[in-house]
Amino acid sequence: MPQNSKYVIGVDLGGTKIYSTVVDMAGNIQASARKKTKAELGFDVVVGRIAKCIKEAADRGGIDLDTDIATIGIGSPGPLDLDKGMIIETPNLKWKDAPLKARLEEILHKKVVIDNDCNAGILGEFAYGAGHGAQHMVGLFIGTGIGGGVIIDGKLLHGYNQNAGELGHVILDPNGPECGCGVNGHLEAFASRLAIEREIRVAELHGVQTAVLQNGEKTVRIRSKKIAEAFFAGDAAVIAAVEKSALYVGYAVANFLNIFNPQVVVIGGGVVEAIGEPYVKIVRNTATKNVFDIARRNVQIVKAELGDNSAALGAAVLAWNAVANEKLL
Amino acid sequence: MPQNSKYVIGVDLGGTKIYSTVVDMAGNIQASARKKTKAELGFDVVVGRIAKCIKEAADRGGIDLDTDIATIGIGSPGPLDLDKGMIIETPNLKWKDAPLKARLEEILHKKVVIDNDCNAGILGEFAYGAGHGAQHMVGLFIGTGIGGGVIIDGKLLHGYNQNAGELGHVILDPNGPECGCGVNGHLEAFASRLAIEREIRVAELHGVQTAVLQNGEKTVRIRSKKIAEAFFAGDAAVIAAVEKSALYVGYAVANFLNIFNPQVVVIGGGVVEAIGEPYVKIVRNTATKNVFDIARRNVQIVKAELGDNSAALGAAVLAWNAVANEKLL
Repeated sequence: MPQNSKYVIGVDLGGTKIYSTVVDMAGNIQASARKKTKAELGFDVVVGRIAKCIKEAADRGGIDLDTDIATIGIGSPGPLDLDKGMIIETPNLKWKDAPLKARLEEILHKKVVIDNDCNAGILGEFAYGAGHGAQHMVGLFIGTGIGGGVIIDGKLLHGYNQNAGELGHVILDPNGPECGCGVNGHLEAFASRLAIEREIRVAELHGVQTAVLQNGEKTVRIRSKKIAEAFFAGDAAVIAAVEKSALYVGYAVANFLNIFNPQVVVIGGGVVEAIGEPYVKIVRNTATKNVFDIARRNVQIVKAELGDNSAALGAAVLAWNAVANEKLL
Repeated sequence: MPQNSKYVIGVDLGGTKIYSTVVDMAGNIQASARKKTKAELGFDVVVGRIAKCIKEAADRGGIDLDTDIATIGIGSPGPLDLDKGMIIETPNLKWKDAPLKARLEEILHKKVVIDNDCNAGILGEFAYGAGHGAQHMVGLFIGTGIGGGVIIDGKLLHGYNQNAGELGHVILDPNGPECGCGVNGHLEAFASRLAIEREIRVAELHGVQTAVLQNGEKTVRIRSKKIAEAFFAGDAAVIAAVEKSALYVGYAVANFLNIFNPQVVVIGGGVVEAIGEPYVKIVRNTATKNVFDIARRNVQIVKAELGDNSAALGAAVLAWNAVANEKLL
């Protein structure tokens, strides 16, 4: 195994696409490749597609996978068994007990390390993005769902079964709306893109005119970009829905400040990317109003910086950490 | 400094009393002493009282403080500056920037280490009580207020400003009752002994007969013991108030399971000591109903074991850890 490789490969395995990147130690992406996941074709086919996507990224960067790359990191939907490198189950991909690490190592003859996609995203922001330089960080990604992760003393929080950090699934009101996971009043049920969409539809049912539902789109999903356009155009229903989302994220962040006392809170994901600072400002104001002085002191609540690259870059960090650990042995 | 001492001294510094214990490495209390805190006499006087209480415990155990004790640990109300060993401020004791560690070291010529009283209690349960053997633990003490603490990979979670773990101050409903800290809907405002008392008084105002308010006690506090007696005697108002408290603690524990994915959750404090298993059972049922399968898997939700000794024993663990760190240097 090459001990002084200049590059690793970080892979973001999503429900709809695979994104692989060749990354140097400073977090610069040298080359990348994308493929559709096609999860419906089953685990074996998708593993083959991941391997191809990895090879394509290396080829594009003019990098020899065999000699120039020590390790490959993957951010995968979970829950995962990190030691075995297995996907325990994932609603997105419909697999159970899938040996992701072992199968990819067989195909590529390379060491593979995995962590869940949210943790990878948090790790990316921690190492190369908005959390750079901090040792205590909380991260939240507000998209179709809400994922999160926590860095404590420079290390990812994993917990006993290695599935800590489910920060979207905290009850903020036991009588609140039902979450996709079945529990009432989770942050995700108040603040995800789907929750924003629900609020807009409810407002429209109550007679509020809204640009995003003009064409009778009862079933089509309302994308973050469209939400942002209507938000900045002054659409009342959309503004109310977005502000409610940010308010509840703010309550949750207040809780995470009292729980973790972090140095930085990084807020990212599709909704935040699209709306930007107006969203983060509501989160910041709500959080700092509802927290102890000592937990508010010095804390930065900021927008994520890496956009769609966060999970792939964080997967690269996983790989670099594995290289470092190997050198220590 | 004695390098192979058989004992340390652990001190629980409370708003009303000081409790000091001589403890061996296995957590056996060899001797102890108690004094009233008399916080109103000021910091200097109280430091003198702590020193006296420490000497009394040593004397009672027939132990020479100078030669047989390496280190003294103190669980103190916070927030604290752990590095400087200072109390930053504490509403209970009305001190600000009080140099607890430095002043006690001057008087006793012994190394003193401090942490906040809740963390000390959690550490006691972790090392010698209900969390023994676990590496990932969440602890909650339900008393007049609600305090908590977290052990991750065998170590206390401290955070950036060393004041993480404020688990009583998490919003469980932004429209809920106001907490003592001024924020609406904190766990403490739903579930502390004071919250139980408020619920009982509200029920009585609505015409519900209750044994604990029979003598027109409008202002006297209702102690946990009295609450427990009425609970077991079938007093409807008290049962409803206690069950509501346990329900909200259950919601909070569900959140902590998804956040921390611990191996064990320890529930203690005056209310839980008084009611016991019926209380813990509601917490357990509520928590495990509202959490991901993976975070529920293998987790134990149990009653604390050390009662009033938890903070003093945890302070002893602080001291033992300091001894161990010194040997490593």
